[in-house]
Amino acid sequence: MAKRIDLRSDTVTQPTADMRRAMAEAEVGDDVYGEDPTVNRLETLAAEMLGKEAALFVTSGTQGNQVAIATIARTGEEVIAEAESHIFYYEAAAVSAFVGAQIRQVPGRKGVLQPTDIKQAIRPRDVHQPRTALICIENTHNRAGGTVTPVHVLEEISSIAKASGVPVHMDGARLFNAAVASGRSAKEIASHVDTVQFCLSKGLSAPVGSVLAGSKAFIDEARQWRKRMGGGLRQAGILAAPGILALTTMVDRLAEDHENARYLAEQLSALPGVTVDLETVQTNIVIADIAGTEVDVNVFVQALRDEGVLSSAFGPTTVRFVTNKDVSREDISTAVDVIANVLKQVR
Amino acid sequence: MAKRIDLRSDTVTQPTADMRRAMAEAEVGDDVYGEDPTVNRLETLAAEMLGKEAALFVTSGTQGNQVAIATIARTGEEVIAEAESHIFYYEAAAVSAFVGAQIRQVPGRKGVLQPTDIKQAIRPRDVHQPRTALICIENTHNRAGGTVTPVHVLEEISSIAKASGVPVHMDGARLFNAAVASGRSAKEIASHVDTVQFCLSKGLSAPVGSVLAGSKAFIDEARQWRKRMGGGLRQAGILAAPGILALTTMVDRLAEDHENARYLAEQLSALPGVTVDLETVQTNIVIADIAGTEVDVNVFVQALRDEGVLSSAFGPTTVRFVTNKDVSREDISTAVDVIANVLKQVR
Amino acid sequence: MAKRIDLRSDTVTQPTADMRRAMAEAEVGDDVYGEDPTVNRLETLAAEMLGKEAALFVTSGTQGNQVAIATIARTGEEVIAEAESHIFYYEAAAVSAFVGAQIRQVPGRKGVLQPTDIKQAIRPRDVHQPRTALICIENTHNRAGGTVTPVHVLEEISSIAKASGVPVHMDGARLFNAAVASGRSAKEIASHVDTVQFCLSKGLSAPVGSVLAGSKAFIDEARQWRKRMGGGLRQAGILAAPGILALTTMVDRLAEDHENARYLAEQLSALPGVTVDLETVQTNIVIADIAGTEVDVNVFVQALRDEGVLSSAFGPTTVRFVTNKDVSREDISTAVDVIANVLKQVR
Amino acid sequence: MAKRIDLRSDTVTQPTADMRRAMAEAEVGDDVYGEDPTVNRLETLAAEMLGKEAALFVTSGTQGNQVAIATIARTGEEVIAEAESHIFYYEAAAVSAFVGAQIRQVPGRKGVLQPTDIKQAIRPRDVHQPRTALICIENTHNRAGGTVTPVHVLEEISSIAKASGVPVHMDGARLFNAAVASGRSAKEIASHVDTVQFCLSKGLSAPVGSVLAGSKAFIDEARQWRKRMGGGLRQAGILAAPGILALTTMVDRLAEDHENARYLAEQLSALPGVTVDLETVQTNIVIADIAGTEVDVNVFVQALRDEGVLSSAFGPTTVRFVTNKDVSREDISTAVDVIANVLKQVR
Repeated sequence: MAKRIDLRSDTVTQPTADMRRAMAEAEVGDDVYGEDPTVNRLETLAAEMLGKEAALFVTSGTQGNQVAIATIARTGEEVIAEAESHIFYYEAAAVSAFVGAQIRQVPGRKGVLQPTDIKQAIRPRDVHQPRTALICIENTHNRAGGTVTPVHVLEEISSIAKASGVPVHMDGARLFNAAVASGRSAKEIASHVDTVQFCLSKGLSAPVGSVLAGSKAFIDEARQWRKRMGGGLRQAGILAAPGILALTTMVDRLAEDHENARYLAEQLSALPGVTVDLETVQTNIVIADIAGTEVDVNVFVQALRDEGVLSSAFGPTTVRFVTNKDVSREDISTAVDVIANVLKQVR
Repeated sequence: MAKRIDLRSDTVTQPTADMRRAMAEAEVGDDVYGEDPTVNRLETLAAEMLGKEAALFVTSGTQGNQVAIATIARTGEEVIAEAESHIFYYEAAAVSAFVGAQIRQVPGRKGVLQPTDIKQAIRPRDVHQPRTALICIENTHNRAGGTVTPVHVLEEISSIAKASGVPVHMDGARLFNAAVASGRSAKEIASHVDTVQFCLSKGLSAPVGSVLAGSKAFIDEARQWRKRMGGGLRQAGILAAPGILALTTMVDRLAEDHENARYLAEQLSALPGVTVDLETVQTNIVIADIAGTEVDVNVFVQALRDEGVLSSAFGPTTVRFVTNKDVSREDISTAVDVIANVLKQVR
Repeated sequence: MAKRIDLRSDTVTQPTADMRRAMAEAEVGDDVYGEDPTVNRLETLAAEMLGKEAALFVTSGTQGNQVAIATIARTGEEVIAEAESHIFYYEAAAVSAFVGAQIRQVPGRKGVLQPTDIKQAIRPRDVHQPRTALICIENTHNRAGGTVTPVHVLEEISSIAKASGVPVHMDGARLFNAAVASGRSAKEIASHVDTVQFCLSKGLSAPVGSVLAGSKAFIDEARQWRKRMGGGLRQAGILAAPGILALTTMVDRLAEDHENARYLAEQLSALPGVTVDLETVQTNIVIADIAGTEVDVNVFVQALRDEGVLSSAFGPTTVRFVTNKDVSREDISTAVDVIANVLKQVR
Repeated sequence: MAKRIDLRSDTVTQPTADMRRAMAEAEVGDDVYGEDPTVNRLETLAAEMLGKEAALFVTSGTQGNQVAIATIARTGEEVIAEAESHIFYYEAAAVSAFVGAQIRQVPGRKGVLQPTDIKQAIRPRDVHQPRTALICIENTHNRAGGTVTPVHVLEEISSIAKASGVPVHMDGARLFNAAVASGRSAKEIASHVDTVQFCLSKGLSAPVGSVLAGSKAFIDEARQWRKRMGGGLRQAGILAAPGILALTTMVDRLAEDHENARYLAEQLSALPGVTVDLETVQTNIVIADIAGTEVDVNVFVQALRDEGVLSSAFGPTTVRFVTNKDVSREDISTAVDVIANVLKQVR
C-alpha cells in the first residue's frame, strides 16, 4: 500500500529523532516537588517567549484551558466564548462540569469575536444574571478553518475587557501558527491577554503537552487545579525535553504547513462541486464543502481513507484537512490527485 | 399622586381577597413529611390539569426549571435551550452551577425553536463532545415577547427528541397564557413534553409558587433536588391554598390580559418612532422598540415611572410592558397617554 | 381516637390564629424587586435582633445554610463541620453539589466542636490539600440531642478562625433555643460568628421560612445564590408576616418546650431498659436509647404511633422526641404513659 | 557532598536505563484516535494482570481515582472513603469539585475500613440524605503507614456492597506493594472490587502514569472523563513504553523496598524517644513518631536534609520515610546513622 497521508489533524505528528534522543537523555526529577530541571527550563523558556511572568506545563490543550478557566471563574458565573470555539464545542462541557460556570456562546465572524458583540454580551449587575468572569479567544480558530484574530481586534477586545474588569484568556492551541501567519511574535499577541495556553504537540510536533502562561499569582493558583485534574506528573522532564525542542526548533517550520494548506485549498476549490472559503485559509487548516458534489461526507472520507488519504468529516457537508510536519508538498499533490479521482468515481 | 400602573411584569399581581381568605383558613401539615393536605390537593389538581402522573409544588419558576434539569441531566452533559431563554438568560447560570451541565444556546425564530436546528444540535457520540441530556422549550417565550410555540412544532420536536432518546422539558412559566392564546388545553400542550413547570404567581396571581409535573418516578427523584435547594417547606398549604384558586378561578381571565396587550401594542406602534413587532404580541407581553424616537431607554423608563407608569428597560432600545390582573383596560389607555406625552416632552 | 401527640419534630407546629390573621392582612409587594414591605420589615427586625448589618428571608434552614456556604466557599475548597451536623448529614450533599466544596467532618464532643480539633483541621497551604474556606457550627446540635455550644467555646473558635482568616457560619436552625437555654441573647451568640441562619418555623411556629444574617456585602451576594436556588419569591410578605410574630411573640415560649423535654427525659430514663444522656437534654430534644429493652426501634416507633404518640427512629437503637408548641405538659405525661405501656406490651 | 538519600516518597524514583531506551524507541500514534500501539499494549497487559475487561492509561493516581469516581457517582450523592484516605486528604477536594459528590469519612483501623462501619455508613433512602454511590478502599493505605487491607476484609466489604447495590473502587496507587506483601496476586485482590487504579510511577519506577481498570462499559465512559480533565494525550506511547517495563520487570523488586522499610523501622524504633508502630510497617512506608525526642518535626526534617537524608514531615510529631528503588540497604544504614546523630545534636 502507498504511504498513508494523514491530514486529519496536526496532532498526529510523530516526534523527531532529536526529540526522541532528548527524552532518553532528559535530566528529570519529581515535578510535584518542583524538582524536575527540564520542566523548569521549559516553563521558563515558554514564559519568556510569551512575555508572561510564569508558565506551567500541562498535559493537553484542554487541560490548559480548563485549568485557566477554573482558576479564574467561580460557580454560577459566565464565560464568554466564540459560539463554535473548542472550549465550548470540544471540551465535553468541562467548564460547567469543573467550576460550574456557564459559557455564553457569542458567534464570531469567521471565528473572530467582534468587539461590539463582546461589549453587548458582558452582563449588567442583576440578581437574575450571572457575573461575566472571563472572555476566551481561540487563536487560531479551529472550526472556522484556522483563522487568525488580528492584533487590532485583540487590542479592542482587551480594552473593552479592561474597562469592565473582565480578564481575557487565549486558547492558543495553535498560537504559533497565528504568529507565523501574521508576522507578529507570540509575545506581541499574548501581550493583549491575561492568560494564554498553547500546544507543544500539534504543528510543533512534540509528543505530549501544552503550556499555560500568565502572571505569577495566577500560575501559583493554577498549579492546584492542574493537580486536581491529575496533571501533577512525576518525572515530567521526559515530556518537557521534546517540548523545549518544539519551541526552539519547530516554530519557523509552520510556514511550510501554511503554504501546503494554501496550495491544497486552491487545488480543492478548483474541483467541480467543491468549495473552500479561501479567505479562511490563513494557516494550516482547510475546510472543504463538498455539497456541490452531492457525495455523502462519510462516504467521501471513507473512500479517501481507502486510498491512504486521511481527513475528518467536519459538518454535514464539510471535510477538514490539516497540514502538518509529516505531510510534504509532494504528499499534498498526491492527496489532491486521490481526492479528484475519488470524486469522479464516487459520484 | 395618580394610581400606579405597574406594567413591569405580571409577577407584581396582588393576591385576591379570596386567596387571602384561603390562606388564613388553609388546612396545613408538615409537607416535608408529605402531610400537608392542601399541598397534596394542589399537586393532584395540577397533575390532572397537565395530564401527568405527578406534580410537585416549588417556590418559583426558577426552582421548577432547575429541579427538573438537575434531576435529568448529569455533570458534563449538554442541555439545549433557546439562545435567549429564561433558563439561559435569567437563572444566574444555575444549570452549570448545580448539576454541572452546559447549555447549548440554539437561536429560535421569534422565540420558537426550529425542529431542524434541534436535530442539528443533538451531539453525536464522541469523546470530545458532551452527551445531549435534555431539550428545553420556553412557552410562552419571555424575551421574544410572549410568543407561543405552536402545537405542531411541539409535535415535531417531540418526535426528533424521542428518536434521539433525549427528553423534553417545558419552561411553562406562562403555560396557561399559551393555552388561552392558542385555544389548546394545557394538557394537550404538555402531552408533547416529558416534564413541565408553570407558575401560580404571574398572570394567575397567586402570591408565591410554581408547579413541576411529570412521571411519578421523575417527581419522586425531583423531590430530593427540591429539598437540596431549600424548597422543602413546612406548612406550605398556606401557599398552596391560593395556588388552587389560581388554577380553578384565574385561568380564563388571562384572555383579558391578552386583549389589553394587543390594544397596547397597536396604540404604541402608532406612536412616532416606536415600533412593535405585532406578530410577537400573542399573549400578555409587549416589547416596544423606541430606537426611532432617539430617546434613551433608561431616561424613557424613568420618565414613565415619574408619571406612575412602570415598565422595564429590556434591551439597548427596547422596553417591555406586561399586562396583568391589576391593570385594567382603562389603565392601559391612561398608560398610552402617558407614554405619548412623555415621548413628546423627552425628545 | 385520642388526640395525636406529635413529638417527631418542632417543624410540625401549626401557625397560631394571630399568624393566620397576619397572613391574610399582610401588605405585600414583589420581593424580587425588593418591594415587599413586610419582608423588608422582617429582615430589618431579624438583623437587629442578631446584631448583624443585614438579613435575608429564605424558604428553609437548608436554603439558609446552603446560600451562606455557596456565597463564601469556592469550588475545590473545604468546609469544616461537625461530623454529624445537619449540613453534612441531612442536606443531601448540597455543599458538594452546589459550590463543589468538600466537607471535612470533625467529630465534636456531644455536638460541640472542640477548638483544638478545629485548629488541627485547618489545612496548611499545599497543592494536594484544599483550602479551608469556612467553619460551620450547629447550635443547638440536632443529632447530639439539642446541645448548646457554650459562648466561651464560640469565643475560642472565633479566635482560632480569625487567626487563620477563615470565616465562621452558624447553623442556628434552633438558635433561639440555644439563647433561651443559656440565658444569652441571640445577639451575643451571633456576635462570635460571621454569618448565621435561624428558622422561623420549628419552635417559633411560623409556617414557612428562615432568615440568614451577616454583613451587608455578604447579604448582597447571598441574594443571588438565593435566586439561583429558586428562593426569590414574589409576594413573600405572606410568609414574612407570621415570621415577624414568631420573632416578637414566640421566643420566650421556648422555655416551656425545654421544661417539657427535661421532664420527658427524666421520666423516660426511669423506664427499665431505656437510657437518656441527661447531660445532652439542654433544650427541646430528647434522644432515648432503648437498646436495653431489646425492642426493635422501628417496631417501637410504630407501636407508639398506633397509640397516637409520634416520634422518630433516629439510630439503630435510638428514638428522638422533640417538644414543641402543640404539645402540652399534660400531653407529655400521656406520652410517657403510652411509652411505658408500649414497652411492657412489646417486649 | 555525600549522595542524597531520598526517602520522601517512592514517587522520586528515576526511570531505569531500559525505560529510557524504551521511550526513545517506542512506536507511537495519536492515542486520542486510539492509535497508539504502545498505549494499547499497556492497557491490554494491565487489564490482564488485574483480571478486568479493560484498562485506561491515565497521567496520575489522582486522575485515575477522579475519573473513576466521576464516572460512577452523580451530583449530590455520597462516596464512602477512609477518613484519612488519599482521595479525601490529598486530592484537593476533587470529588466535590468535579462531580459534586460528598465524601463520607469513615475512620478505619490502621487504614483498614471495617465492614461493620461501612454497613452503617450506607445511607437509607430518605429525601434529606444523599444516596451512597460508591465505596473507596485505599490499598495500601498511605497515611496509615502503608497498611494492606486483608483479602478477607475485601471479601466482606464486597459482600456488603453488593447487597446494597453500591460499587467498590480501589485506590491501589501502591496495589503491587499490597500484592507482594500479602503474597496474593493483584488479580486476586482486584477481583473483589469493581474498579481499580494503580500507579506505574512510585515503586514501579516509571516516570509518569497510572492505569485505571474495570468493565469495558465503565472504561468506555471513563475515557470521556479523562478527556475532560485533559488526560487525552497524543503520542502517549512515550509514557506507556516504560509503563510496560514497570509491570513486566519491576514488580518483584518491591520486596526489597519492604525489607528495607522493615529494617529502617526496627532501627528507628530502637532510637531513644522515637516510636514506630511496627504493626503498620507492612510495605515500603515507615512513619516515625518523634514526640518522645521533644524535637520539632520541621527542625528535624530540615536537619536530616542538611545531612543529605530526605524525609517528609507528616503530622505534628511524625515523619514519613518511604523506601524505593533508588535507596539501597546501605543507604538505609547510612540514613539510620544520620538520624541517630541528628537526634543527638538537635536535642
